[in-house]
Amino acid sequence: MKNDLKKQEAIYTDWEIVKVSQDISQSKHDLVVKEKPLTVFVDGVEIVTLICSPEAYIELGVGFLISEGFINSRNEIKALSCKQEEGLLDIGLYKPLSNTGGFLRRNIASCCGKGRTSLYFINDARQVRPLDSGEMFETKELTMYLDRMEIQAEVFKITGGVHCSALAKDSTFVMFEDIGRHNTVDKLIGYGVLNNIELADKCLILSGRISSEIVIKAARVQIPLLLSRSAPTELALTLADDLNISVIGFARQGSLNIYTHSWRLT
Amino acid sequence: MKNDLKKQEAIYTDWEIVKVSQDISQSKHDLVVKEKPLTVFVDGVEIVTLICSPEAYIELGVGFLISEGFINSRNEIKALSCKQEEGLLDIGLYKPLSNTGGFLRRNIASCCGKGRTSLYFINDARQVRPLDSGEMFETKELTMYLDRMEIQAEVFKITGGVHCSALAKDSTFVMFEDIGRHNTVDKLIGYGVLNNIELADKCLILSGRISSEIVIKAARVQIPLLLSRSAPTELALTLADDLNISVIGFARQGSLNIYTHSWRLT
Repeated sequence: MKNDLKKQEAIYTDWEIVKVSQDISQSKHDLVVKEKPLTVFVDGVEIVTLICSPEAYIELGVGFLISEGFINSRNEIKALSCKQEEGLLDIGLYKPLSNTGGFLRRNIASCCGKGRTSLYFINDARQVRPLDSGEMFETKELTMYLDRMEIQAEVFKITGGVHCSALAKDSTFVMFEDIGRHNTVDKLIGYGVLNNIELADKCLILSGRISSEIVIKAARVQIPLLLSRSAPTELALTLADDLNISVIGFARQGSLNIYTHSWRLT
Repeated sequence: MKNDLKKQEAIYTDWEIVKVSQDISQSKHDLVVKEKPLTVFVDGVEIVTLICSPEAYIELGVGFLISEGFINSRNEIKALSCKQEEGLLDIGLYKPLSNTGGFLRRNIASCCGKGRTSLYFINDARQVRPLDSGEMFETKELTMYLDRMEIQAEVFKITGGVHCSALAKDSTFVMFEDIGRHNTVDKLIGYGVLNNIELADKCLILSGRISSEIVIKAARVQIPLLLSRSAPTELALTLADDLNISVIGFARQGSLNIYTHSWRLT
């Protein structure tokens, strides 16, 4: 409990503000979330700088490499070296990466051959495949996970400045809060992979919207169900439909919208 | 009005869902936002693929180049060629870009020399400078801009799946909705630059959180005030403090928090 409090304090801080309310100004204090750059290197080569909440850097870096398709499992990782204060993470791999530059670019040549607009911006080399999953969930358990995430989202309650995601199934419940929507998912994936947690039977719960990139990240680690209080995009749904992933949105107060693969809910 | 409706329809679409409410399942229809990749080329060289709402591609591409510091004004642009359907935009410049690869990486060497954590991830070559601005705003007008944005956020009302930003001052009010928080700002900046709209006297209103990247984008075009219903991050505030930008958050129902440069409000 003490540790949790300490961890929270490391990710937000005090800021002096002027509060204006009904035309009256007052000096006050507010708590705001910290935001730090983490630069990820692979075998000494700079890959990306992620702007994030300053905790779980190793989970974030490993999760990023997995969810962006650079590596497929923790067995490919030889060494991890993190300088927390400087925001530097170096991940050593057994096999060098062949392509580190173009992960934010789309492969025009191959996409045209494929003729699938929805897969335009997925680099061919790191293609995702449909899940071979018959995993099912109960509506009741999903509501429970959502409630639990809301209760445990301490940093959000204090600062209003973070997103939150959780991985859940039965008694397993792991959660991360981060200023970046994608970071919460990468941290979960990194945590899962580093701790040998089965991901293919889990539900991924999100505070934010479900975009195509979130679906692709989930598909890379075989997560069969995405659950959000917020909205999905059409491209996310088209991909999820193709990839055998269930997407549920607008899950609020005993009501939810099932957008894809509704058979997975009982 | 008709055009507006058509535009909206181009950025969302119909999706068949199963709605579960109080244990009762029903087939229904829902409206979801579209999400498309736009690949930006500069003189034929691929720069980045932005995932966005499929409208205002030229504004987005030009705004991105400006707000990321690749170019400083519309006078540097020689030609614009957009293939809307394929999501391809080529921007021709009079002077070739020297560095197109590393905009998502931070300049470790120079940051250490500078010893400023908060500027770590700003590439030296595209450094931002503090605003020389004495521009002031009234609390009353800010509330009016916020109300106007809420009223005009049609796509959000219909789909719940977009962010929204606006540029406002007196009778000028420009607004964009987009699935990406950064895209709304880039589209506004692109629109402003392409239409010769003065930006240095405007207020930038945001539906989403104020992160450091948003402050840097604003600083590049000399926008002196950022106003959001949501929270800022500490790094955003540190930068805004240094850059002479006023940040106002949690602006809701006649109440707001002024985090930096409160002198700008009367």
